Amino acid sequence: MSKLQQVQEWTAQQHADFAYISDPRTIQYLTGFYSDPIERVLALIVFPDQEPFMFAPALEVEAIKETGFTYPVYGYLDHENPWKMIATNALSRVNQPKSIALEKGQLAVDRLENLQTVFPTAKFDLDITDFINSLRVIKTPDEIEKLRIAGKWADFAFEKGFAAVKAGRTEQQVVAELQYALMKEGIMQMSFDTLVQAGAHAAEPHGATNATKFKENELVLFDLGTVWDGYISDASRTVALGKPTDKQLDIYNVCLEAQLTAQDAAKPGITAAELDQVARDIIDKAGYGEYFIHRLGHGMGMSEHEFPSIMAGNDMVLKPGMCFSIEPGIYIPGVAGVRIEDCVAITETGCEPFTHTSKDLTYVG
Amino acid sequence: MSKLQQVQEWTAQQHADFAYISDPRTIQYLTGFYSDPIERVLALIVFPDQEPFMFAPALEVEAIKETGFTYPVYGYLDHENPWKMIATNALSRVNQPKSIALEKGQLAVDRLENLQTVFPTAKFDLDITDFINSLRVIKTPDEIEKLRIAGKWADFAFEKGFAAVKAGRTEQQVVAELQYALMKEGIMQMSFDTLVQAGAHAAEPHGATNATKFKENELVLFDLGTVWDGYISDASRTVALGKPTDKQLDIYNVCLEAQLTAQDAAKPGITAAELDQVARDIIDKAGYGEYFIHRLGHGMGMSEHEFPSIMAGNDMVLKPGMCFSIEPGIYIPGVAGVRIEDCVAITETGCEPFTHTSKDLTYVG
Repeated sequence: MSKLQQVQEWTAQQHADFAYISDPRTIQYLTGFYSDPIERVLALIVFPDQEPFMFAPALEVEAIKETGFTYPVYGYLDHENPWKMIATNALSRVNQPKSIALEKGQLAVDRLENLQTVFPTAKFDLDITDFINSLRVIKTPDEIEKLRIAGKWADFAFEKGFAAVKAGRTEQQVVAELQYALMKEGIMQMSFDTLVQAGAHAAEPHGATNATKFKENELVLFDLGTVWDGYISDASRTVALGKPTDKQLDIYNVCLEAQLTAQDAAKPGITAAELDQVARDIIDKAGYGEYFIHRLGHGMGMSEHEFPSIMAGNDMVLKPGMCFSIEPGIYIPGVAGVRIEDCVAITETGCEPFTHTSKDLTYVG
Repeated sequence: MSKLQQVQEWTAQQHADFAYISDPRTIQYLTGFYSDPIERVLALIVFPDQEPFMFAPALEVEAIKETGFTYPVYGYLDHENPWKMIATNALSRVNQPKSIALEKGQLAVDRLENLQTVFPTAKFDLDITDFINSLRVIKTPDEIEKLRIAGKWADFAFEKGFAAVKAGRTEQQVVAELQYALMKEGIMQMSFDTLVQAGAHAAEPHGATNATKFKENELVLFDLGTVWDGYISDASRTVALGKPTDKQLDIYNVCLEAQLTAQDAAKPGITAAELDQVARDIIDKAGYGEYFIHRLGHGMGMSEHEFPSIMAGNDMVLKPGMCFSIEPGIYIPGVAGVRIEDCVAITETGCEPFTHTSKDLTYVG
């Protein structure tokens, strides 16, 4: 059964008149078409027992048809009222809808109010988000193959980036070199802003790459990812320029042990919270617990913000096909920031990482 | 009066107990701090007669304080419930709030439901979006200066991009060269995915740059922008590789006349709809009206999706400080796509463009 048919079946089970799907990533997942319409309206309307239709800016209609979407597509121009047009098309299929399901994690409140106005007979209690997430959390072999390819390009980017680090150069220059190398190969999109941070600058885990210059004898943190056919990679490595201090080496080794041990423990049956604890225990025991200030990992696939979230309190049991990052980090202000990260897919017996760049401490420069 | 004080005053006038500000761009506009928290929670709570506070992921707290935000900042860890913590902090200032204002164009429905749970005494009828937009639509001299600098970098990118176009090269290679040139200068962020489209490929106005190769005797469309200190540029040029056909030249000249005439007409007193019509009349009269399938322009500043929207039906009167694109386009399938675009600021007597690359047809290759 196709993913779209599974959504249809869900609307039938829930006795919804239709589902209003509005997250561009969900639409891509269900139809193959991706576009972020920003302030314009893009929606996929799925009925229990009729053909779905897509509603889109007129600009996008051709592109939607080209992706092979065989159901009706209705376009609107900028000066037209999209809500009335959606209502006209939906009401010609369902008279007086009583229950409309939404993606409540994505739909803005003003859009809900617009839908309430044009569908005054309907309730909007149903949220299809959890069901969509339950589909998306288990990646298909096709999806995993795309994640592998995206991972290979992250490995390529590490190689080019490590080679570009030299004392006196800036973080930004290294990002320029590695992204240029990717673009020359036709890889135009990073999955997020590439992070290269030198020395103590890396102790700001959400800081940005800037004009900080590399100095001899410090650690350098890389966090990067590419996009391949709508699927992403995301990986981190920390490398040494010159000779790190004993303290920096100790942080590195503790973080590496946490990462390797967690990656080894990632298999069907363990929960997300337990896996987080595996890494956290090692860092706690080494005395750096207070410096590991984020969850162990996040789900990933079409974006870096999917399920499962690998953190305390999440008792989701890991299953084959789930994909997520394993990225312990230790950030000591003024000393160094270390993060080591692979994204992995849970297999029948363990997990498969998407990136293969060595995690032994690499010396650059 | 600071922008934050103006928001405070608005909450007092509206008799709101507080405003829950959640759009990361609004938070940047009001405080100078920018971060996109994605699925995490970042909010600025503004009271009529008390100090505001910020609520953020623990990771971000230091960065917020470093931007000079002098009011309280409360952080939460991934496993904590942010809604309860927001409620605790807000209820210690306002007992039993009756009215909470939201940014309804940005807040997701599930977050509204969370707020309804933790503030059961409150109504959420007030939408502060229009008021925020009314502030943001008039740019200050500081903001305009940033837009000028972002515009200069777009001109720099055109120069590098035009020089890279050669028959046989791909669109992607040209993007690689111009973005590399920018990154070497420390300009790391484009305001959107750079568009370079060759020949008939440019007739898809929302198509993407790909591996299409340039051929002699065709038009090439560029649409690009950079980010400078949180403010963007956005400009389009169409150039000729070799000798375009008479038809292509005709399209170019009509589009250019529409662009120049509209830019000349952009001044205080004209409405957004009237300005759109100025360009549309020229293209209609030349017989290409059906191929101009989008509005004339969009507001811009921190993003390319601000007010005023320059389109039919928008009777907003243009005023000094408003900034927007003027970008007529003619897209004839199989023939060519032409778009010419400057973003401008309305001045006391006319408008000032942020980009200065020549709009006479430029020959490259």
